[in-house]
Amino acid sequence: MLPHAAVNVRIANADTAALAIRGMWVRGAPLIGAVGAYGLALALDRDASDASLARAHAALDATRPTAVNLRWALDRVRAVVAPLPTDARADAAWREADRIALEDEAMNHAIGVHGLGLLREIAQRRSGPIRIMTHCNAGALATCGWGTATAPLFLAHAEGIALHVWVSETRPRLQGANLTAWELSRRGIPHTLHVDGASALLMRRGEVDLVIVGADRVAGNGDVCNKIGTYGKALAARDNGVPFYAAVPSPTLDFASPTGESIPIETRDGDEVLAVTGRDSYGQTVRVTLSPAGTRAVNYAFDVTPARLVTGIVTERGIAAASAGSLAAMFPERVQ
Amino acid sequence: MLPHAAVNVRIANADTAALAIRGMWVRGAPLIGAVGAYGLALALDRDASDASLARAHAALDATRPTAVNLRWALDRVRAVVAPLPTDARADAAWREADRIALEDEAMNHAIGVHGLGLLREIAQRRSGPIRIMTHCNAGALATCGWGTATAPLFLAHAEGIALHVWVSETRPRLQGANLTAWELSRRGIPHTLHVDGASALLMRRGEVDLVIVGADRVAGNGDVCNKIGTYGKALAARDNGVPFYAAVPSPTLDFASPTGESIPIETRDGDEVLAVTGRDSYGQTVRVTLSPAGTRAVNYAFDVTPARLVTGIVTERGIAAASAGSLAAMFPERVQ
Repeated sequence: MLPHAAVNVRIANADTAALAIRGMWVRGAPLIGAVGAYGLALALDRDASDASLARAHAALDATRPTAVNLRWALDRVRAVVAPLPTDARADAAWREADRIALEDEAMNHAIGVHGLGLLREIAQRRSGPIRIMTHCNAGALATCGWGTATAPLFLAHAEGIALHVWVSETRPRLQGANLTAWELSRRGIPHTLHVDGASALLMRRGEVDLVIVGADRVAGNGDVCNKIGTYGKALAARDNGVPFYAAVPSPTLDFASPTGESIPIETRDGDEVLAVTGRDSYGQTVRVTLSPAGTRAVNYAFDVTPARLVTGIVTERGIAAASAGSLAAMFPERVQ
Repeated sequence: MLPHAAVNVRIANADTAALAIRGMWVRGAPLIGAVGAYGLALALDRDASDASLARAHAALDATRPTAVNLRWALDRVRAVVAPLPTDARADAAWREADRIALEDEAMNHAIGVHGLGLLREIAQRRSGPIRIMTHCNAGALATCGWGTATAPLFLAHAEGIALHVWVSETRPRLQGANLTAWELSRRGIPHTLHVDGASALLMRRGEVDLVIVGADRVAGNGDVCNKIGTYGKALAARDNGVPFYAAVPSPTLDFASPTGESIPIETRDGDEVLAVTGRDSYGQTVRVTLSPAGTRAVNYAFDVTPARLVTGIVTERGIAAASAGSLAAMFPERVQ
């Protein structure tokens, strides 16, 4: 409901966890991984049988197809609990989910430190605020802390580097306008909202020093699957010589997908395109339809940016080139 | 107010004509040219002095900076009436404005005939509907008839060529969702709405045979200034081998601008980005704010697509390459 309202929901069972992920009460690849893990723990609290474990794993896994973190987290919890006697499973699942959440926060902080290096370099060679463009929300709200693309920004701001962030509104769900603007505003980081279609012009005008986005899945060759509109932004960056980075914790790397071609792209309800939620002049939250009655809309939620357009992948271990060789060298234990 | 309501406004004086253009009650380069011409006629009805002519010309010209048709139409009417005695000026202005409007309709029909050739070629080499992508609204509502980018579509549909049109919603003003979807729906042409950020993915998926857009101004070298988001769409077309055309009547050609660099880009109120108008569940038209209170937005209304990304310029005389040589050869009388 942000930025119109902040609503806290207590997720008390696995079904509600699944609903929260599917309905995008929580979103962002790292966060839906952690919520999936806790969902499995909740299911095992009620019934720790093999059947219950399989059912909850399947139900949570089916909520959203593109972010690989969800499957990764569910598999990780299952691998820990499956060998245990049933009466030990729930506690072990809670501990593993906690580990996933804490590790996510730590990985994002490490991403922030590596990304900060990029920002310091830019700060050294130009005066005035560094102009960063991002897309969607890869912020604290998309993770268990710090965000991925935002972690370098938050660290740079904390050490006094002047920033200005270009926030693409990110249609259809407006995560840029609703969430990234909200996060930056709360932290006092100067930012300006723009329509997604203005990204290329802003780069052409020389108003962008660096683009940094999150990702829902990165293929083994460095293809970056992220929120719809990212590919177009990367094309604009390339055409204008602007460096384009994806910031991803290693659970987002999918070495089982050799290229982006094999990543499933979620198709969501066209109603997300046809209508938007906002505040009316009385401050009430209202959903309004934008187009003529009967209009049909397609709603692919993600696209794939080819590795050739990606300057680098910022991970918790450092910045890899967007190539199979560089990613495998940084995460050798992940390559089969 | 389309598609939520259709409102007819009688424009009874030059001030209202200026308001209609500035407030985008009418929009589209060809149409604002014609409305500007009629605005000058209305001014001369009241007062046909040199001072009145100069004042109305300046006021109408100041409404919107990017579309060159406005200045072109105002200059054309002024050139006709200025040498005349004051009592003959108003009638002459009305006749010239009528000519501008009728010529626009005829030019757009001719654009349609030339563009139809492109569609027939595609229809011959593939089965199933031709998949056309457009941007914003370069339809009948943007002109005095037929539209520019839509004229080939309307003619193709009339001769039974199966079409499917991808309609980008075109934030911030949603001319795709509000106007193009409405025009296509009324004519029974199948179409699907998508967010602007999905354009590149649709091309990557091989779902687009041709992109055709209008323009607000085309520079002498073939750089195309059009609604914000066009440049990014052209980059995506190039990256995926999709032909990219701009459909423009010759008054949109600006040989006085050697390249797109010298075209003034209108900056509109950020509120157009921060809020949208739609229908609530009671069918009422409501304007809602999308982002956190206090968010600042930038609203460049147009961008420039470099000629190198443009496959061709469809004009009333035929299809020119997007180059100074080709455009000058097609319109030799326009080159000084």
